[in-house]
Amino acid sequence: MAKNMDSIQPIKWRNNMLFLLDQRALPHQQNWLQYEHADDVANAIFEMVVRGAPAIGISAAYAVVLAARDAWNNKGGTWKTAMVEPLAVLAKSRPTAVNLHWAIERMITFYQDLDDDKSPESALLEEAKRIHNEDISANYKMGKLGATLIDNNSIVITHCNAGALATGGFGTALGVIRHAYTEGKIKHVYADETRPWLQGARLTAWELQQDNIPVTLQADGAAAALMATTKVDWVIVGADRITANGDVANKIGTYMLAILAKYHNVKMMVVAPTSTIDWQLHEGNEIPIEQRPGQEVTTINGNKIAPEGVAALNPAFDVTPASLIDAIVTEAGVVLSPSLENMRILR
Amino acid sequence: MAKNMDSIQPIKWRNNMLFLLDQRALPHQQNWLQYEHADDVANAIFEMVVRGAPAIGISAAYAVVLAARDAWNNKGGTWKTAMVEPLAVLAKSRPTAVNLHWAIERMITFYQDLDDDKSPESALLEEAKRIHNEDISANYKMGKLGATLIDNNSIVITHCNAGALATGGFGTALGVIRHAYTEGKIKHVYADETRPWLQGARLTAWELQQDNIPVTLQADGAAAALMATTKVDWVIVGADRITANGDVANKIGTYMLAILAKYHNVKMMVVAPTSTIDWQLHEGNEIPIEQRPGQEVTTINGNKIAPEGVAALNPAFDVTPASLIDAIVTEAGVVLSPSLENMRILR
Repeated sequence: MAKNMDSIQPIKWRNNMLFLLDQRALPHQQNWLQYEHADDVANAIFEMVVRGAPAIGISAAYAVVLAARDAWNNKGGTWKTAMVEPLAVLAKSRPTAVNLHWAIERMITFYQDLDDDKSPESALLEEAKRIHNEDISANYKMGKLGATLIDNNSIVITHCNAGALATGGFGTALGVIRHAYTEGKIKHVYADETRPWLQGARLTAWELQQDNIPVTLQADGAAAALMATTKVDWVIVGADRITANGDVANKIGTYMLAILAKYHNVKMMVVAPTSTIDWQLHEGNEIPIEQRPGQEVTTINGNKIAPEGVAALNPAFDVTPASLIDAIVTEAGVVLSPSLENMRILR
Repeated sequence: MAKNMDSIQPIKWRNNMLFLLDQRALPHQQNWLQYEHADDVANAIFEMVVRGAPAIGISAAYAVVLAARDAWNNKGGTWKTAMVEPLAVLAKSRPTAVNLHWAIERMITFYQDLDDDKSPESALLEEAKRIHNEDISANYKMGKLGATLIDNNSIVITHCNAGALATGGFGTALGVIRHAYTEGKIKHVYADETRPWLQGARLTAWELQQDNIPVTLQADGAAAALMATTKVDWVIVGADRITANGDVANKIGTYMLAILAKYHNVKMMVVAPTSTIDWQLHEGNEIPIEQRPGQEVTTINGNKIAPEGVAALNPAFDVTPASLIDAIVTEAGVVLSPSLENMRILR
């Protein structure tokens, strides 16, 4: 591993509080915000202080710790009942990334066995830290597994930010890119800027710069022309929810890239931990797609870029059918040509 | 024609000067800038005070008038020779839109027959006005022709701005949309915001608002998801250069849309006057594609949106092969399934 490739970590637990690196202010400012209550974390998730499916899951796990502390302090022996409402709020903070629900469920299952008459904080904190550390370990594993699929000197397009900032650290798609780069398998990365929230411009370009991985930014609409004029080998992205048949919800624009990749014979890799798989859903059209405020499209950094009063559509995610995906890489293994059948190896 | 649908005109000749509506400041400010010298118009074209292939051509025609006035005032009887340098500068202001060269060539051909010993200004001004008026008439014709291809209550996506602002008035793609709308053929228009320059957000949304045509803005990366979830009937765009075989250079992202349209069985219409056709070029890969400063991608309204020092790719145009286009609409007729063979009806 090249030096510093694990230097970026967006979530920290310090002094009995959750600290989140404010991703709205990156790359120009590195502000850490501190949280002592689950409701505030729910709000931070909605406001995208923290974003990226795995990072949302980890933050939610720590938020459960905060909720438990408040519940114990206020309600004592009935703290489990007092958890119901704040965890319902937390679960609703964003609808698409299933890791949020996965982490909350795992924490709920864990605390069922805890004593009603003892503070649950330290035990729950250990579990949240386990979730956090497992996520980082999973990323290193996926980095290694994904890299095996990539030939030397490949040219890669990535979309949004599926990096250290979207996870506990190291990243999913960017974990594969980081690992493959150290092995000489990646020559250059093109990062889609990823409107409207500009995760590619603000976060991915910054992360890759930190690790000295050659990166060029492009408008989302330029990816097709790049594929037509340059030999692109892989599109590598993360995921917010994967259904049982291998359909993938990810940042708006991913489905576009998948169609363009198929048209140009470019391969498509999705990298996500198994906590992103929703085995309850059969296919992608069952995934709830978050519609965010149109204002995210009509303004940039608070400045209006469209005429007053114009309507804007702002789906935060789209669904890429499994048929357009060459490989889904998880910490539990790689699924080539994903389908209901082929996904079974992960169950 | 609905009232006011011809109210927007970005180019005016008044008081012996060229006035351009500064498209960099729209929609928030409507500033008219005035020009008395051809070099300043060349600079205005490069800086995108005026943009859109037909509007660039018209502006260049007026710039030839300004160049002729300066040449006559400074050099008298050798004014034709004195025109060579300023027109060479003008011709280089932007490389992709062929209308620029077309207009300059037409003006040069016209002034060959003018008397060396008489001020050429008024004769050239008449010719420039003819070019301007012919463009507007062509747009009305194309609007009518294009609308015949569209079924009632259609849903349309457009990209960039091929509207009144990109032409003498009324528009090419937006001319078709305006005409079709008055006939009840268009129910709703989705405008891609069109990064990096945001012509869709700033210009197209504004134009359609002025005419009360229902418009919704979307990020460029959202077009694929829209096609997957909504019945879209047509993608309708303009062109900067069309080759003999029907390949089309247009704003970056058009090629992406064409691939997405094909994938979703959405039809693709290109609307452009015959002055946009470059019969000298056999196919699209011969078209020079302008690479603009990366800064247009890394900043918005002067505000940095990417980390310091990151590289950015900024091709202003891409090439859509004729095979992905269902119809090219010109004032001289409609070419269905464009090809070298089918394009011949326009020669």
